[in-house]
Amino acid sequence: MEHRLNNFSDYLNNNQVDMAFINSTENVFYLTGFHTDPHERLLGLLVFKEADPVAILPSMEESQLRDAGWKYDIIGYKDHEDPWSKMKDQLNEKGIHSADTIGLEKQVLSYGRSESLFSLFPEAKVVDVEGQLNEMRVVKDEQEISIMREAAELADYGVKIGTETLKEGITEMDVIAAIEYELKRKGVTEMSFSTMVLFGEKSGQPHGNPGDRKLKPGDFVLFDLGVVWKGYTSDITRTFAYKSVSDQQRSIYEKVKEALEASLSISKPGTRIGDLDQTARDIITEAGYGDKFPHRIGHGLGINVHEFPSMSHLNDGTLHTGMTYTIEPGIYDPEIGGVRLEDDVLVTQDGYETLTKTPKELRIID
Amino acid sequence: MEHRLNNFSDYLNNNQVDMAFINSTENVFYLTGFHTDPHERLLGLLVFKEADPVAILPSMEESQLRDAGWKYDIIGYKDHEDPWSKMKDQLNEKGIHSADTIGLEKQVLSYGRSESLFSLFPEAKVVDVEGQLNEMRVVKDEQEISIMREAAELADYGVKIGTETLKEGITEMDVIAAIEYELKRKGVTEMSFSTMVLFGEKSGQPHGNPGDRKLKPGDFVLFDLGVVWKGYTSDITRTFAYKSVSDQQRSIYEKVKEALEASLSISKPGTRIGDLDQTARDIITEAGYGDKFPHRIGHGLGINVHEFPSMSHLNDGTLHTGMTYTIEPGIYDPEIGGVRLEDDVLVTQDGYETLTKTPKELRIID
Repeated sequence: MEHRLNNFSDYLNNNQVDMAFINSTENVFYLTGFHTDPHERLLGLLVFKEADPVAILPSMEESQLRDAGWKYDIIGYKDHEDPWSKMKDQLNEKGIHSADTIGLEKQVLSYGRSESLFSLFPEAKVVDVEGQLNEMRVVKDEQEISIMREAAELADYGVKIGTETLKEGITEMDVIAAIEYELKRKGVTEMSFSTMVLFGEKSGQPHGNPGDRKLKPGDFVLFDLGVVWKGYTSDITRTFAYKSVSDQQRSIYEKVKEALEASLSISKPGTRIGDLDQTARDIITEAGYGDKFPHRIGHGLGINVHEFPSMSHLNDGTLHTGMTYTIEPGIYDPEIGGVRLEDDVLVTQDGYETLTKTPKELRIID
Repeated sequence: MEHRLNNFSDYLNNNQVDMAFINSTENVFYLTGFHTDPHERLLGLLVFKEADPVAILPSMEESQLRDAGWKYDIIGYKDHEDPWSKMKDQLNEKGIHSADTIGLEKQVLSYGRSESLFSLFPEAKVVDVEGQLNEMRVVKDEQEISIMREAAELADYGVKIGTETLKEGITEMDVIAAIEYELKRKGVTEMSFSTMVLFGEKSGQPHGNPGDRKLKPGDFVLFDLGVVWKGYTSDITRTFAYKSVSDQQRSIYEKVKEALEASLSISKPGTRIGDLDQTARDIITEAGYGDKFPHRIGHGLGINVHEFPSMSHLNDGTLHTGMTYTIEPGIYDPEIGGVRLEDDVLVTQDGYETLTKTPKELRIID
């Protein structure tokens, strides 16, 4: 993590930012290797353009931060203590009394915490450093990719368990229970979001809620799930037909698959990111389903299950080797149900690799 | 939810706040009955001192908000649209061009979103309305209490499953998998936090991480878990001995139990909240374990698993009928392990009721 902290500190130096306050669990993890959920408690890093960084966190988590390799100062505080006044004392001890420019994660730091921080540095100008951290995180290194491969393999495994669990009359929730049980037994402590299993007409809601809907022949079965694994996420969607498939269902399925494959085929270094959405959207729109694909094609994937970049048709950025994101076109019909297919994609030097490997050919489960 | 919106609107009117922007999923749920995780997308309510409220959320979730009973305007936006400029247009249509005072949830709204909001109302003064919403939420009504009873019963059930799953050599993660499997089969879609099962010395870390530690005779087994149920949470901790218990373990256990019971016994309307922590802490400190109880006694419980009030010894507020919170003293020894016992407590007219019912007598599991 040393070089990440150094790179970030260099960035601050080059941009005349005296100090950055990093408050998101994800960026703290990225810069320290330490992952924790502090709930409403304050967790943060002060990173300076010149001085060594300082961590601030609840006292009871200090030893875990040390275990992760942190060798700099720690400001630990107990529940009844005010972390901001401890921070002020520590900065005074270090001879840091002012800052002209402070960097924040503007989309993360709460307005209230920004007030506390500015009370220590009332004269400081504010700049956003989230973009820089997003930029640093967007290209994954070998170690990150290797973890994300494992995370995607576990997502594939979740879909496999899901398909094996299907039988007439089973509920969506029972299938979710079975999937997560087997994933937990593989050591998964956290899903990357609430697992979604939707049957029949319920698959026709892009953000439907699983419940006690029972599986019937002729239903679409949509799985959307992922895991958090060693701090990184995966996110897969597959849709299957149960027992039989109508012509209308097949035609929706094939169109979504075609859109996904078209978007995959242009996944390579240099492609304009927005073209991935546009390519898939054109296919779906030309087939007459444009109004049934109400969301963007995907999102960046890494420490967060939704991270930079946003894969919308408006994104003028370009793909680079080592970027990881989802492609997930869908067509949703409230009556006949919906199909979404989603892969986790890694941009390689030559093109792309899908980290998720579950086949995408229409499968009718018996 | 009508009366909650009306009450909040009255509060704004009485305090000369022209408009509040409510951005937390929890307060949106409290005011609308609609619960969703918008990830990084904007979800919010504009509540006015006089005009009808307006909701803003991704288009694809509009129908679910309507299903929850929302009868006012909705500003829906697609992924590629800027929600803030749609908000501006809508407000202009309503003839709302300025606001002298805007209310925010200061601890929730991000600094970046506050900038977007202030760009629409550059002249507005900011006040915090989170305190008022916390105040409204802190006393639960009959319907909320009835749901929280169910949530607590499911937490008890989780502990029961956990104890039944214990056998020599099983790992912490396997026990978690079994607990969550059975809870999901009861319809639980989300745990209120990552389920914690810790064996032996690992129970001696107040925030340890479950893993592949195998169960051995003589271990403490600590369960800390809860569910989200119909939008409300539960949170229980129980500690058991496996096969045998040493005198030292027993003495820690009994002290924690005594601290919990002492704190429970003063749970009634009119008690100073800080006294709950102090009472338990005095007992643990007098027994020589003061430095092994590094966290506050508990936290408010409701829509959030950690909500208002903070049950620290510094809290000078008083208990009222209908308040719900946890009491969870603990003693942690990195070598012999730790004990924490936690109940969900409801303040009644006469005193208290624990919503969690699992017995607290030291139990040695065979």
